[in-house]
Amino acid sequence: MTTSPVDATAERGVGEPRRQLSFGLIGSGRIGQVHARSIALSGDATLAWVADPNLPGAVALSEMYGARATASTAELIDCGDIDAVLVASPTPTHIDLIESCLDAGLPVLCEKPIDLDISRVDALMSKVSLSKIPVALGFNQRFDPSFAEVRSRLLAGEVGELEHLTLISRDPGPPPSAYIGVSGGIFRDMTIHDFDLARFFVGEIAEVSAVGAQMFDAGAREHGDFDSAVVTLRAVSGALVTIINSRHSAVGYEQRLEAFGADGILQVGNAPTSLVTSSTSSGVETRPPYVDLFLERFADAYTAELAAFIQLVRGEPSGSPTYTDGREALLLANAAQLSAETGALVRLER
Amino acid sequence: MTTSPVDATAERGVGEPRRQLSFGLIGSGRIGQVHARSIALSGDATLAWVADPNLPGAVALSEMYGARATASTAELIDCGDIDAVLVASPTPTHIDLIESCLDAGLPVLCEKPIDLDISRVDALMSKVSLSKIPVALGFNQRFDPSFAEVRSRLLAGEVGELEHLTLISRDPGPPPSAYIGVSGGIFRDMTIHDFDLARFFVGEIAEVSAVGAQMFDAGAREHGDFDSAVVTLRAVSGALVTIINSRHSAVGYEQRLEAFGADGILQVGNAPTSLVTSSTSSGVETRPPYVDLFLERFADAYTAELAAFIQLVRGEPSGSPTYTDGREALLLANAAQLSAETGALVRLER
Amino acid sequence: MTTSPVDATAERGVGEPRRQLSFGLIGSGRIGQVHARSIALSGDATLAWVADPNLPGAVALSEMYGARATASTAELIDCGDIDAVLVASPTPTHIDLIESCLDAGLPVLCEKPIDLDISRVDALMSKVSLSKIPVALGFNQRFDPSFAEVRSRLLAGEVGELEHLTLISRDPGPPPSAYIGVSGGIFRDMTIHDFDLARFFVGEIAEVSAVGAQMFDAGAREHGDFDSAVVTLRAVSGALVTIINSRHSAVGYEQRLEAFGADGILQVGNAPTSLVTSSTSSGVETRPPYVDLFLERFADAYTAELAAFIQLVRGEPSGSPTYTDGREALLLANAAQLSAETGALVRLER
Amino acid sequence: MTTSPVDATAERGVGEPRRQLSFGLIGSGRIGQVHARSIALSGDATLAWVADPNLPGAVALSEMYGARATASTAELIDCGDIDAVLVASPTPTHIDLIESCLDAGLPVLCEKPIDLDISRVDALMSKVSLSKIPVALGFNQRFDPSFAEVRSRLLAGEVGELEHLTLISRDPGPPPSAYIGVSGGIFRDMTIHDFDLARFFVGEIAEVSAVGAQMFDAGAREHGDFDSAVVTLRAVSGALVTIINSRHSAVGYEQRLEAFGADGILQVGNAPTSLVTSSTSSGVETRPPYVDLFLERFADAYTAELAAFIQLVRGEPSGSPTYTDGREALLLANAAQLSAETGALVRLER
Repeated sequence: MTTSPVDATAERGVGEPRRQLSFGLIGSGRIGQVHARSIALSGDATLAWVADPNLPGAVALSEMYGARATASTAELIDCGDIDAVLVASPTPTHIDLIESCLDAGLPVLCEKPIDLDISRVDALMSKVSLSKIPVALGFNQRFDPSFAEVRSRLLAGEVGELEHLTLISRDPGPPPSAYIGVSGGIFRDMTIHDFDLARFFVGEIAEVSAVGAQMFDAGAREHGDFDSAVVTLRAVSGALVTIINSRHSAVGYEQRLEAFGADGILQVGNAPTSLVTSSTSSGVETRPPYVDLFLERFADAYTAELAAFIQLVRGEPSGSPTYTDGREALLLANAAQLSAETGALVRLER
Repeated sequence: MTTSPVDATAERGVGEPRRQLSFGLIGSGRIGQVHARSIALSGDATLAWVADPNLPGAVALSEMYGARATASTAELIDCGDIDAVLVASPTPTHIDLIESCLDAGLPVLCEKPIDLDISRVDALMSKVSLSKIPVALGFNQRFDPSFAEVRSRLLAGEVGELEHLTLISRDPGPPPSAYIGVSGGIFRDMTIHDFDLARFFVGEIAEVSAVGAQMFDAGAREHGDFDSAVVTLRAVSGALVTIINSRHSAVGYEQRLEAFGADGILQVGNAPTSLVTSSTSSGVETRPPYVDLFLERFADAYTAELAAFIQLVRGEPSGSPTYTDGREALLLANAAQLSAETGALVRLER
Repeated sequence: MTTSPVDATAERGVGEPRRQLSFGLIGSGRIGQVHARSIALSGDATLAWVADPNLPGAVALSEMYGARATASTAELIDCGDIDAVLVASPTPTHIDLIESCLDAGLPVLCEKPIDLDISRVDALMSKVSLSKIPVALGFNQRFDPSFAEVRSRLLAGEVGELEHLTLISRDPGPPPSAYIGVSGGIFRDMTIHDFDLARFFVGEIAEVSAVGAQMFDAGAREHGDFDSAVVTLRAVSGALVTIINSRHSAVGYEQRLEAFGADGILQVGNAPTSLVTSSTSSGVETRPPYVDLFLERFADAYTAELAAFIQLVRGEPSGSPTYTDGREALLLANAAQLSAETGALVRLER
Repeated sequence: MTTSPVDATAERGVGEPRRQLSFGLIGSGRIGQVHARSIALSGDATLAWVADPNLPGAVALSEMYGARATASTAELIDCGDIDAVLVASPTPTHIDLIESCLDAGLPVLCEKPIDLDISRVDALMSKVSLSKIPVALGFNQRFDPSFAEVRSRLLAGEVGELEHLTLISRDPGPPPSAYIGVSGGIFRDMTIHDFDLARFFVGEIAEVSAVGAQMFDAGAREHGDFDSAVVTLRAVSGALVTIINSRHSAVGYEQRLEAFGADGILQVGNAPTSLVTSSTSSGVETRPPYVDLFLERFADAYTAELAAFIQLVRGEPSGSPTYTDGREALLLANAAQLSAETGALVRLER
């Protein structure tokens, strides 16, 4: 089946209820499960197929939502009864799966990053550009309601021209050493979200300088990676961006943002787990530690991300990040890696 | 069908997955819709029937969740394929519906208040007490995660003995005048939630004094009701409680709590709509106005309320408020009304 | 010397620098020391005399500021080289000292309360009213910059008509039992500040209802006093006021205010001791406990109180509370005491 | 008179009250006035002389505190009746004045920076080192109570090892263009405070990378200076530091700090002007804009700075920053300037 965005809406007559999009999901791991749930909760989509080489995982997930399971991604893509594909499999499989979806005429929402190797990303670029089939990248943080609120208030001019953006992202704890070994390094694995957010807020980036440090994580040290990083970006617009990352934080999952404009400041704080504060003789106005899972912190973002992709598939105006967004974020990660290794500021060619 | 709490669990063998409870819902208005959604989202329940004399409302709601519709509550209660009933119909129908459910052997979760007339409440009291069929009252605020967190931290002794509790509840705007005319007055209609919360936190109440005022609402004035009220309670434990109510608030739906103990203070603030703060030359650290719908403010509470009722039906430990809780809250509302009218403190007889 | 308000300014020619007011201070205890320091720091006043029957106290304080000391208040009042008197001696001496100052033509700023006995207060009332010599009462909290800011923003209409005012005042710990025995009880000793603040914000009071409790303090129990109290006032304007008091608080000195208006809310929080917050795995955004001394919390208020009194002495517009303000606050305290003892609301006759 | 630290205390017998230090103040401008007031308020010091080539300024200031005035700094240094000198004159005069004080045996507290030219700073270095006369630098922010509180809590291990420090400093508005022309640039003029604070918190610095931008200020553009800057430091300890500066901020004077440690976070927020928050339909929990003068923000810091210098003069343990601290901050500013111009990270040689 080759549903193009045009077809998707043309099938409906005026006043007809919207037909639900039928999804195939590739990958039944943690992120796959999040997407399966988002699809099930959406009033606009149903989950039809789940593919995973780990067949028991695919079966378990598909049964929760009345879908079919397969160990073969090819079988899913060729099944003929899906309208779109959601790719939540390991990074090295992304490029080939996107290409297969394009060939099958299936819109695809692919988890970030596209790939860790820019040459492989570039190799598919022209095919994606020339195709009319939508390809969206899973930069879910753009869809966080608070981040999105700040962006729309910035665009409305509420605090004047944006001069400096600070992004603070810290995970509760470092991933397993084995994961770090295949992650592509902190800039491509973790900071990549902040690179995309930076572009979302300030547009194209002209210069990157970065420092990294090994402070606490044996896994990072083992693989020559950093567990802490600070990145400074200069946007083409002239705005500066500071990104502060750490692979651990004692207070939970940290995702903060501060947009300093000529006329004021917009900030996003960490997400509390309740509305309770406590005050005792040892301290006052204390709140419980922050939400400590990114799945929980960004639950609403995943839902909105899917909704935007459905709009994209239907040919409606959509804020879905594109393949190009995925490529640009990787270019920034590569530049940061180079800067951190050489101590030199990296200017991006355009 | 007459599912008793014992039967509900006895039907399952060891290791068997839990059978889902089949619900009949009476009332398809705003609260009925909230409960229908909670049942649908619960992994432990399904919605089988919706009854409403307004048949189109029942039909529309039942279709959303694959349930059957009827204009007759009797048909629903006698249908034979439900395990429990959720009553979300107008207050004057509650007493009769609870009695019918008891007669049919059906556990019932009934929206508050039981009734506006204490003599009618008392008349059913012994039947409820003698029956083994669970009857739960819809004091959903007990299940608000933040209120519940404060209570469990109080019970854990975190701030010592509770000496003073302040509850501030304000609605975004007054209800229609016609509603006020049948509401039973602010104490029975609005403060009743705070009376129940007060008992939830400090136990039985010994004394009630209340003042009311007509400050802004023409509807309240028309019906001789108050639009603002302040109530002071003294608990049997000795703790004092202050309740502050208003039928309007410019900042949205206000639900705040402050528990002052010998060793500290636990507070619940209003629910923000986002994590964003803004700072400009006219003011800093500003947050967007609060959530302005109680359905949104207490969405999690409705879910938890249903879960507790399902535990009750299954004979498991449950925090569901009881028929007695509903009666006690009404007694406090009556005492407050009397105190506000006479200027005298009212001592509750026990 | 008999400086009248008119004389004080008449002595200066146009463009002449202001002559400093010469003060006599009666009482060298804790509050007396605060006032001595305020006088010394003021650019408009000097401390000339300190009187205290405890002569060593008077001597020690006078030496710090280059003043003269005496054990005799009569000597101070008759010394001939002071322009005004500040009375910071024990409450039972206030009435006689105010009268002596009036007789000597000396403006007087007297610490609150005027007296614990309303008949004694009334006995001096007409003399005070008929005299042209200024008498000011030391309700310093009116001069707290944050309270004063709220009042002026209310008057500017920032949150519309004031409907409900909440005052929360709690001391770090109860006073010695002996002090409680002569204090006149919690309403006349502690709540009196809140009664004055209530009048400052909502004007004259029509009704008072109060409850008191003995929860933790042996001294209060020994003297039949309350250690905790809740008072509800209804203003002639229709606004309601809630006052919440406790003789202890684990978090420091609490002085909070919430003014709920038709269009919004103005709040005053407790005073932090620093700008620091800390976040750890056991709690986030924790601030150090509040300032725990009223002298520190209201340091700026004492300074502003003196400045207003100097304006009063000079015949300039001044916000100094009057003898009548002192009397009205005592009437409210008496009404609260009666209400707490009888359980009946007390209507104030006018 | 040549008071050495040892002499200063040797003159007192056991149990004698402390002799007050007699100060000569050089410079009667804005900062000079702050210091004059601090000296006057201190119980340990008196102001004896004020010198300023602008004699009317010196006269006006000296008269406020009963001191003598001169247009000649030499006359002040040679007057024979001062114990210490406070230098608050323009930067180009600092080096010579420090040297003159050393020659006269007078302890000196000199405003920052020592000089804009590191070669001139170095030229005096050995003389300062060999002398036993105390020389202190006016890095007043070290003495801010909140910054100092964070440092002592860090040293106490409250949040574990410090991994990342963020300093955000923004002025309410840019200085006059003429000032910028002689300021030495944003790094030597404004960031120098943050460089000193960074060393105060993380110790010696190993690497500096910086970016600057011209975003809004015509004066900065005219003189080839930056109006905005971001600096990244790596400490010898391994900790990273981010400094964010702007010459303007719509919300007032911003001085924030965040110390991220292995076990938690300590933060210093901006200083509010009152304890009031307001909530309306257009935003809730709004506070008034921040304190907008550094003199007001750091009033307590100036007092504590003087107290530390008095301890230093008396030979007691003291936290006064040294000549070396002033030199190190200038080296960091120079490195930042170089990095911002070349795009290369600068490694500091030691």
